[in-house]
Amino acid sequence: MNSTKDSLFSNHEDIKKLLEIAYELNDIEKIGAVLGWDQETYMPKGGITGRANQLSTLAGIHHEKLTSDRLINAIDRASMTLGEANVYDRSLVRELRRIYDQAVKLPVEFVKRQTEVFSRADQSWQEAKEKSDFRLFADDLKEIVELVRKQAEYFGFTDSPYDALLDIYEPGLTSRKAAEIFKQVKVITGNILEKIEKSEVTINQDFLKRTGLSKKKQWDFGIDILKVMEFDFERGRQDESAHPFSTNFHPHDVRVTTRFTDPFFTSSLFGTIHEGGHGIYEQNVDERLARTVLCEGASLGIHESQSRFWENYVGRSLSFWALCYPELRKTFKRRLKNVSVNDFWRAINAVNPSYTRVEADEVTYNLHVLLRFEIEKDLIEGKIEVEDLPEIWNAKMKEYLGIVPPNDELGVLQDIHWSGGAFGYFPTYTMGNLYAAQMYYTIREKIPGMDAYIAEGNVKFITEFLIKNIYRYGKTFMPDEIILRLTGESLNPEYFEKYLEEKYSKVYKW
Amino acid sequence: MNSTKDSLFSNHEDIKKLLEIAYELNDIEKIGAVLGWDQETYMPKGGITGRANQLSTLAGIHHEKLTSDRLINAIDRASMTLGEANVYDRSLVRELRRIYDQAVKLPVEFVKRQTEVFSRADQSWQEAKEKSDFRLFADDLKEIVELVRKQAEYFGFTDSPYDALLDIYEPGLTSRKAAEIFKQVKVITGNILEKIEKSEVTINQDFLKRTGLSKKKQWDFGIDILKVMEFDFERGRQDESAHPFSTNFHPHDVRVTTRFTDPFFTSSLFGTIHEGGHGIYEQNVDERLARTVLCEGASLGIHESQSRFWENYVGRSLSFWALCYPELRKTFKRRLKNVSVNDFWRAINAVNPSYTRVEADEVTYNLHVLLRFEIEKDLIEGKIEVEDLPEIWNAKMKEYLGIVPPNDELGVLQDIHWSGGAFGYFPTYTMGNLYAAQMYYTIREKIPGMDAYIAEGNVKFITEFLIKNIYRYGKTFMPDEIILRLTGESLNPEYFEKYLEEKYSKVYKW
Repeated sequence: MNSTKDSLFSNHEDIKKLLEIAYELNDIEKIGAVLGWDQETYMPKGGITGRANQLSTLAGIHHEKLTSDRLINAIDRASMTLGEANVYDRSLVRELRRIYDQAVKLPVEFVKRQTEVFSRADQSWQEAKEKSDFRLFADDLKEIVELVRKQAEYFGFTDSPYDALLDIYEPGLTSRKAAEIFKQVKVITGNILEKIEKSEVTINQDFLKRTGLSKKKQWDFGIDILKVMEFDFERGRQDESAHPFSTNFHPHDVRVTTRFTDPFFTSSLFGTIHEGGHGIYEQNVDERLARTVLCEGASLGIHESQSRFWENYVGRSLSFWALCYPELRKTFKRRLKNVSVNDFWRAINAVNPSYTRVEADEVTYNLHVLLRFEIEKDLIEGKIEVEDLPEIWNAKMKEYLGIVPPNDELGVLQDIHWSGGAFGYFPTYTMGNLYAAQMYYTIREKIPGMDAYIAEGNVKFITEFLIKNIYRYGKTFMPDEIILRLTGESLNPEYFEKYLEEKYSKVYKW
Repeated sequence: MNSTKDSLFSNHEDIKKLLEIAYELNDIEKIGAVLGWDQETYMPKGGITGRANQLSTLAGIHHEKLTSDRLINAIDRASMTLGEANVYDRSLVRELRRIYDQAVKLPVEFVKRQTEVFSRADQSWQEAKEKSDFRLFADDLKEIVELVRKQAEYFGFTDSPYDALLDIYEPGLTSRKAAEIFKQVKVITGNILEKIEKSEVTINQDFLKRTGLSKKKQWDFGIDILKVMEFDFERGRQDESAHPFSTNFHPHDVRVTTRFTDPFFTSSLFGTIHEGGHGIYEQNVDERLARTVLCEGASLGIHESQSRFWENYVGRSLSFWALCYPELRKTFKRRLKNVSVNDFWRAINAVNPSYTRVEADEVTYNLHVLLRFEIEKDLIEGKIEVEDLPEIWNAKMKEYLGIVPPNDELGVLQDIHWSGGAFGYFPTYTMGNLYAAQMYYTIREKIPGMDAYIAEGNVKFITEFLIKNIYRYGKTFMPDEIILRLTGESLNPEYFEKYLEEKYSKVYKW
């Protein structure tokens, strides 16, 4: 039994049989998530060998069940009865077929080879990053690019092999569509940066960079902020990990993590809010979707839209800090003595080009993704070579951001994704930013006086709106459908432009 | 690949094939252990539904693999080549056949029914205990007794159905043997209690019962003690849970838990040492046994011998506190100001009959187990009825311990075991105590000056002796073999008598 409530799925025998298999498959995935969470939070150093074996055994079991005749037969049977089906049945069949197809298209030997190479590359990337020497990673990366191209072939594509990869992370996204979007984003960003450059406002960020803040005070404040966002600690928790992440084992068991960095805030606090955004999304998927492939965020892009919405549209707004700043100031009395809420708000919104994506402000952030998108596409299409990457990287940094990283660590080696073969993943970051902007204007339209509500501490109405329109459906709707249903139009980057203009004209006073 | 070191198993093709299956099976078990650990330590309240599903799916997969033809065929093939086999091969085959036999003897429908009833009984036992009303648990318990009798039939037995149950937890133990042992233990305990009663020593325990001690200080002191015992925090960790336990996912990933109770010590500190004893056993099984059924303690009794050895034979010895008391006194300055190390040692060894087993001192502890053994045997053999249990319980408490619990919560409902069908488990507690005594004298003989070493902080030599003679072998040897190999004779309760006499003649000065 999945839940005491009525099922969202129809009562057809073929759907019920399919659900039985779907539940088992999803349980196995969630078990893997528990193992992963433990590995990143509490597992002692010595545990790594055993954990690798456990994960590998579990992956084998999952793959066997996912590619079984039992599953595909049940999918096929259920497909034939879709005439009587509801939207949940249809989406269930669609998503199960999708993961089945992906799984059977890759030969077992190929998957094993991937696992080996990724595991080796994870080590060599780490070493290369530590020593800031791209050459230590180059050979493994070459092999990965070959594997990823091969994977694209297995999956199949029409225009570019990169399309097959984009589709893994953001169903429906193509190179052509992404290129159009990035073209717009580039213009938008350029315009805003020009205005900022002309501004005579100078923003003091020194007080954000002071070191030695009490970890406990930061932790407690972060927990309070998560509560403001309506993150439910009866159905989730926060722990520490080297890199913040969110994961879930059930809508009622969602785990987010944070880390503490000296100096202050930019990483820790906004990391907490960001993961909290992912977390409340997962906490509020309808529990009747639990144990199925539909019980998770609609796509990486839609997921990121929520983390970024909470981090930036709420978390870096003046009204949010009108609410939370008094408490923050009380917590860090000495440090924030002479800092007004306006000073603070300006400081957390200052725009400065940075070497790394994760430290980027809202305006320059997408340039990091654009750069990565162009490089990935050229690499997968065979237009550039792995050994030339540092040079190409630095040239593009110079062109788009006007700065050149002093070394590979802060340049081409900054992100982990490539070592795990995650090509096609980065564009979802920008998709998330754009979705978030478009949603933001819909919410403001539907809930007049939203800023005042936030300032009063009544953040609940935003969460409830998002639950009602996005969260509860999980993966029932495709990314495109979600944005269309919610905002009345397809993805439109102009909302992002409007948002940047509106916000930064206040920050930089033009 | 299991380890970079040479394998302990022989290189025969049939053994290698068997190991492949054994590894997968064991990985699944350890994955279950991770889920269980998380459930007891960090899982938020809301996680329970999802976790139950995950555990149930995992149990199904495990059962399917355990009862598969693939496994039994591999066992049979390996059995035929045992002529060329070493001790590890033989034990592997023996233990795999044992768990295979147990699994296939129980029909799938029966196991499902067990799971349902145990899950319901866990609730009703908790409620009954909270309300201290046995009647709320009686109906479920009746059903459990029926199921357990049925299970004994499925497993098969010669003399008593209780034999089949004992053998689950302590391979080789029978009712007849247990009855003989308990007869001796009863006499031994009676003699010691008589001497204690005659003693004119009165022991002040008041300072153990003061409340309001800093949790952090207790935690830190507990960690220090675990380090003294050579518990390796690179290959394990301690966390908090409602009921202390130890578990492991690999010899290099062993988790123990503790809890903090007001008042002081008796529960928290000795609980830490007790679980630490289980923990260092698991940490020191030869890692080349990892991922097999041999990679765990030899039996519950042998496991308990180690937790009790560390808790009582080391942890309640004068030499141990000669080492650790100065630090403890520094930690709790105000409370222990006027308490000498001798006062402290006497207080932690005082003998007073208690209502519950977990609070019992070393002398009266086994009477609690004896009482439970007699009741369980009679119940399973159909000589007494469930509804009469509270009365029988209280009568036996009066007879053996001279006190009658004021209510069922502190009486017949005190322990969780029955609600999970664990009949035949309790005797392993006493087996552990007796094994520990016998081992203790061997160690003292082999390492003259042992007490002085402890007092100097050189506890390592004990750990090393135990690793060399017990821990590293895991389940390779049967309980009987272990005790015979180590001490040169079979289990002999006289060592326990000798130990009690030696220790308590000092505590109570006769």
